[in-house]
Amino acid sequence: MNAKSKPIKIAKVQKEESAKAKELDQLCVNTLRFLSVDMVEKAKSGHPGLPLGAAPMIYALYDRIQRYNPENPHWFNRDRFILSAGHGSALLYSILHMTGYELSLDEIKRFRQWESMTPGHPEYGRTPGVEATTGPLGQGFAMGVGMAIAEEYLRACFNRPDIPVIDHYTYGLVSDGDLMEGIASEAASLAGHLGLGKLIYMYDNNKVSLDGSTDMAFTEDVGERFEAYGWHVIDISDGNDLDAIESALHKAQFEKNRPSLIMVRTHIGYGSPKQDTSKAHGEPLGEEATRATKTKLGWPLEPAFFIPDEALDHFRQAISRGRQMESEWDNIYKRYQREYPELAAQLDLLMNNNLPDGWDSDLPKFKSNDGPMATRDASNKVMNALAKKLPIFMGGSADLASSTKTDLMDTDDFSLENRMGRNIRFGVREHAMAGISNGMYQHGGIIPFTGTFLTFSDYMQPSIRVACLMNSGVTFVFSHDSIGLGEDGPTHQPISQITSLRIIPQMTVFRPADANELILAWRLALERKGPAALILSRQKLPILDPDKYPIFEDAQNGGYILSDTADSKPDIILIATGSEVQLILGAKERLAHEGIAVRAVSMLSQEIFDEQPPEYQKTILPRHIPKLAVEAGSPDTWYKYVGDNGDVIGLDRFGVSAPGNVVMENLGFTIDNVVKRALNLIGRRA
Amino acid sequence: MNAKSKPIKIAKVQKEESAKAKELDQLCVNTLRFLSVDMVEKAKSGHPGLPLGAAPMIYALYDRIQRYNPENPHWFNRDRFILSAGHGSALLYSILHMTGYELSLDEIKRFRQWESMTPGHPEYGRTPGVEATTGPLGQGFAMGVGMAIAEEYLRACFNRPDIPVIDHYTYGLVSDGDLMEGIASEAASLAGHLGLGKLIYMYDNNKVSLDGSTDMAFTEDVGERFEAYGWHVIDISDGNDLDAIESALHKAQFEKNRPSLIMVRTHIGYGSPKQDTSKAHGEPLGEEATRATKTKLGWPLEPAFFIPDEALDHFRQAISRGRQMESEWDNIYKRYQREYPELAAQLDLLMNNNLPDGWDSDLPKFKSNDGPMATRDASNKVMNALAKKLPIFMGGSADLASSTKTDLMDTDDFSLENRMGRNIRFGVREHAMAGISNGMYQHGGIIPFTGTFLTFSDYMQPSIRVACLMNSGVTFVFSHDSIGLGEDGPTHQPISQITSLRIIPQMTVFRPADANELILAWRLALERKGPAALILSRQKLPILDPDKYPIFEDAQNGGYILSDTADSKPDIILIATGSEVQLILGAKERLAHEGIAVRAVSMLSQEIFDEQPPEYQKTILPRHIPKLAVEAGSPDTWYKYVGDNGDVIGLDRFGVSAPGNVVMENLGFTIDNVVKRALNLIGRRA
Repeated sequence: MNAKSKPIKIAKVQKEESAKAKELDQLCVNTLRFLSVDMVEKAKSGHPGLPLGAAPMIYALYDRIQRYNPENPHWFNRDRFILSAGHGSALLYSILHMTGYELSLDEIKRFRQWESMTPGHPEYGRTPGVEATTGPLGQGFAMGVGMAIAEEYLRACFNRPDIPVIDHYTYGLVSDGDLMEGIASEAASLAGHLGLGKLIYMYDNNKVSLDGSTDMAFTEDVGERFEAYGWHVIDISDGNDLDAIESALHKAQFEKNRPSLIMVRTHIGYGSPKQDTSKAHGEPLGEEATRATKTKLGWPLEPAFFIPDEALDHFRQAISRGRQMESEWDNIYKRYQREYPELAAQLDLLMNNNLPDGWDSDLPKFKSNDGPMATRDASNKVMNALAKKLPIFMGGSADLASSTKTDLMDTDDFSLENRMGRNIRFGVREHAMAGISNGMYQHGGIIPFTGTFLTFSDYMQPSIRVACLMNSGVTFVFSHDSIGLGEDGPTHQPISQITSLRIIPQMTVFRPADANELILAWRLALERKGPAALILSRQKLPILDPDKYPIFEDAQNGGYILSDTADSKPDIILIATGSEVQLILGAKERLAHEGIAVRAVSMLSQEIFDEQPPEYQKTILPRHIPKLAVEAGSPDTWYKYVGDNGDVIGLDRFGVSAPGNVVMENLGFTIDNVVKRALNLIGRRA
Repeated sequence: MNAKSKPIKIAKVQKEESAKAKELDQLCVNTLRFLSVDMVEKAKSGHPGLPLGAAPMIYALYDRIQRYNPENPHWFNRDRFILSAGHGSALLYSILHMTGYELSLDEIKRFRQWESMTPGHPEYGRTPGVEATTGPLGQGFAMGVGMAIAEEYLRACFNRPDIPVIDHYTYGLVSDGDLMEGIASEAASLAGHLGLGKLIYMYDNNKVSLDGSTDMAFTEDVGERFEAYGWHVIDISDGNDLDAIESALHKAQFEKNRPSLIMVRTHIGYGSPKQDTSKAHGEPLGEEATRATKTKLGWPLEPAFFIPDEALDHFRQAISRGRQMESEWDNIYKRYQREYPELAAQLDLLMNNNLPDGWDSDLPKFKSNDGPMATRDASNKVMNALAKKLPIFMGGSADLASSTKTDLMDTDDFSLENRMGRNIRFGVREHAMAGISNGMYQHGGIIPFTGTFLTFSDYMQPSIRVACLMNSGVTFVFSHDSIGLGEDGPTHQPISQITSLRIIPQMTVFRPADANELILAWRLALERKGPAALILSRQKLPILDPDKYPIFEDAQNGGYILSDTADSKPDIILIATGSEVQLILGAKERLAHEGIAVRAVSMLSQEIFDEQPPEYQKTILPRHIPKLAVEAGSPDTWYKYVGDNGDVIGLDRFGVSAPGNVVMENLGFTIDNVVKRALNLIGRRA
């Protein structure tokens, strides 16, 4: 009997324990739910629907699967988590608070208030544990792909047998909205192609979007689509089944060469009177429905922001778990430092986002007789010089590498077979290219670049904006920078694009006049560690004699005097960028013959010029001297420089298909026209 | 024996005829190939690879399937064809010339030259038979979907039993590049959802893109993906098999409720030494390779642009075929006019892109006490008034209808079940929404609109640009127009977007100050028949008293004096748009107390103001009076108006998540700050 009763007792105890554990799990899930609901209620603004439905997924992930240390959100080998459905921010803040990140209950209560740590959508840099700024749908999806690429690359480069110094997963929560967005399709196709097995997304398949049932617009077979991309797809029918979610996550981890999409059938606004309706999506439940929901899920009506002690105790075990994980990794890392000191030194630098000494020592300096040279070709030389010194300089082009000249020579393509390749073949997927590059930067340890034609920056605009929001150090290379590209015609000739880039806050745009300004542009782009756009010519440009022009001294100020009058008292100031600098230099010469003294200013970067002290700016562009700006693009950003006594030769029309020089000539980009307009300007003033 | 010999003879004749026909087909296909190759050679620029590989598809389509009349490219019931892979333009120009469109051999020879009818990529309006401007990849794909929607809608509305007055297909040629683009994924998913059976795309599956084999980046299972979208997929292994292509096209026509993707395995640069390599993609073959290709395919080396008489005769049968088709349709149409004169009159108007008399007679006029009212809400009223008079006013939102207020009330959703619905549920697919709307407009007969938040105009930018290139009359409605949207935070608060829209050539942007300016904006948008963007507030705005302010008289000039000084001699001019007009009116009042005379100008549309005669502009904004512009967006387009004695209260930073009024206040959009900056400005001048 004893022999028999014991197992029964154990079984009973186990059963009781299991029931208790389940109860605790439920308590924890509901804590996340109601913290989120109360945040939205208090703010009178936000999205309660996703947190109510998706809380079990987030709980399963953070409680049972994800490796992180709340005390050190920057631990380099942490698993990354990205909430692509950024409108579910309340849920993310709830889990971060509960697991012990430095995010106080006070901040939880300041949801969506001025400069709180809990803004409406997750913002990188504002909240510990938030890996990326999300909200514009699809962006998080692409960034997760970038993080997974970064991990694969760094793992391949740095790990040594038995020392897995880089080894983590990238998780994400994505919504139907994310999956409808084109950028997610692009990124998913590439992730499948690249076989990013350590990328694991949970899909909050709640069948409801803002306007109602997804049946209204989204009836494709998502699972089949992702299988077509080469993903591993798992379907879970009950979004409250923690064990099923956990086991799916384990299964996904087991997949080495396929990213995983775990489709979890959830219910938006779960437990509320608005469950399964779009009413639950983007507005507070309201007092009544909040009460009803709390009652239905057995939650005390008072106080708001109620956190049961048992739940808090349980959640906060994440701290000791995290400490333990990081300290185990520290031991690995110490061993790595001992056994591979050089690699460890490299790793140390990149983990701290520092450039190694001498990173720029191989940058070329071009002489006049090296040219003429298109700045895209000069860029190729600079990029390859950088690549030699910076093993983490990595990127690619949207199927235009041969035109944008962004290929790195001494390396291969990044692929499933070769994780150490540094040329990424993005395919004709400009938008995903930008989003993925953001993710690579956000992961840490990578200096990413992209490449396409300037016109197609339009396709990347939403992701470029996210890079700017996060101040991510991605360098966006754009060649074929004007109507000067010629025959491809108006569809391919950028007009508004350079301006559209300049006006995004935190973006720095460079349009170099020649190969040497280009060198400086690359250097500044990397040193500034923020988003930068390099605007490069397709056509060849003469190389300005660096002994004659103060490029290496002054261009770092953004705008500078390339060539002045003897007494620094010009009759007129001509300003230009890129290929048009040749025109103003030519016009200066011609105007000199007519006794007109010209100052020629090259405006490599308006943003950097604008950062200079006002005295400097006034020295270069004194107020009362007439000014003519020349740039083959929309004129709008120039008016503030040229003022009332000024004029702009720009473009407010589309281009034309014809040889580049013909287009330039016919649309006014000639020395003749610059001279004519300069004379007009002086005449008008006289 | 006689009885036996006869059929043998017939069979022999048939066989001979069939061999002859095949020979002729081959001759025709090669004519297209070498016209294209010679165009590229002569221009020393272009894409020979696609024409060499895809000529059989285009030939099969235009020779055996497509219904069109070369003599009347505007025949309303023609089948539409869209070359989404616009870089294959030479092939399109070749078929248009050969089939007898008004496109001379001289123009063929002026490929890619200044203002020729044969630009580098197809341009709508420049070449008869070109239905849309294509080249930026994915755009054509989406526009074809829009054309198919337009056809379905018009067919449902206008056809009557036995009188199929609208009844045509939409065909397209798409490339791997198209299919990689996110916009194509979005559009394909929606096309599958909507069951657009009359949409038939041929996929030029040549396995090579610009950077090399598509294996480098594009290994997804395209067929499976499209099946997941709900498409009918056909695979053809030999791109030269005209009969297989023809039979696939027939099969596709037979599919009523699924769009078709015919995947045709082709060879880029077919027959050339560069076949199957990316070298054949985007540059001339060169003299030697051209010779080798002509030799290989049995084509005379001389002369260039050789057109065999038999080929020309055969191709030009398209003219009599087309005449016949259109005349048959004319008979149907005449019968329709007799039996349904009212419908025919409607159809007549829309086929000619004319607005019916009284289209604007139901537009509301708001009184002060109708407000305050958000301009998005006013827009909803206006749109519904328009919808009553304009049965072809049709569109939708990217899953934000409840926020953008773009739903039409007296109609249903456009769906597979209800082809007469006028609300299109685009899903979270902003980019496709814009591209599809372009296609709806290009089809003719539809006045399309779109809806999303202003921030997400970034996602639509490439398609908006194409609308501008074509001057398509799509009205893009953007609500949530500033940081004033509040809690959703910087990810959702537009900064640069209004400027990015303004600087696209041919775009007209309206930011109405109140519900009545909004009415005018809608009216002008429709009257101008070009692309327009309406920038609408989320928050409520007071309605300006139309008896006090000259909105209905003067606002049509784009910028106008809302409130002047008694003597029209202001000390300062305050300019604003949208919600900020309230601030300058408030500031005017406050400044009046201090004895400062203020003119308040509302700048409903900068573009329209810029179109006014200079005298008008000078009357409104005389040069030497200080000016302060106030707009919650990037300031760049304002400098040209305010000049040296001016200032701009704008935004060169991202917003913040907080209640809208808090954000507005903290970022300087208050009457106090306008007053302060106005005083500074005058002080500075004094």
